[in-house]
Amino acid sequence: MTSPSATQDSYPYQHEPIWSRSEKAIARQAFDAALGQELHEVIQEAKKMASQIQQSSELWDLEHYLTQRRKEIDRKYDFRGSRLTDVLGRLLYENRLGEEDLRGLPEEKMKSIRSFAQFLRHSAA
Amino acid sequence: MTSPSATQDSYPYQHEPIWSRSEKAIARQAFDAALGQELHEVIQEAKKMASQIQQSSELWDLEHYLTQRRKEIDRKYDFRGSRLTDVLGRLLYENRLGEEDLRGLPEEKMKSIRSFAQFLRHSAA
Repeated sequence: MTSPSATQDSYPYQHEPIWSRSEKAIARQAFDAALGQELHEVIQEAKKMASQIQQSSELWDLEHYLTQRRKEIDRKYDFRGSRLTDVLGRLLYENRLGEEDLRGLPEEKMKSIRSFAQFLRHSAA
Repeated sequence: MTSPSATQDSYPYQHEPIWSRSEKAIARQAFDAALGQELHEVIQEAKKMASQIQQSSELWDLEHYLTQRRKEIDRKYDFRGSRLTDVLGRLLYENRLGEEDLRGLPEEKMKSIRSFAQFLRHSAA
């Protein structure tokens, strides 16, 4: 698909919805809150793990935990428009945000977000 | 030097002294004590860093610190006979062990160990 033919009412890349500035602002707020909460949880867990360290193997367990969580969070919190529907759907599935946090998004986007959350629910079952 | 010619009283590889079983036992005790002390220090520092974390950047600072220290310790504590003189010399230079911890090693080995510590002292000056 090197030269996609764009038409007036369809975006050249399928599955890549356009996010308006105001929609992005709504998404950004929910996204940042979920990320902040997740980082807070990692901080609390790291403090707990560190406080319980008695031998060096537990020290490297802490390092491993931090590396894994950093990579996972980097992968998960991707704000690019092309990924945003799935990212918000995953956060919804993980209960890191609720539908009320996305109030103001058009129903069409909410549908896609809910649909991805539902897909993850089924995959996990 | 693919086919070194060993003679009765010289080891085929220069700079690779032979460590007898009893010398290795002395070295091992000093080595393990220094390693244990260094790991203890890293554990204390990690606990302190973790207890002071307030934001996520400090969380990844802790991860980075642990990764660096692990790699450094892995490199430094190498018990192979071919490396042991330099390893003990470095620990002597860093005051992680004293000459008294190596009591029982032959003077010839002590000389090499002291000499490497001295070399590091000069390099750092």
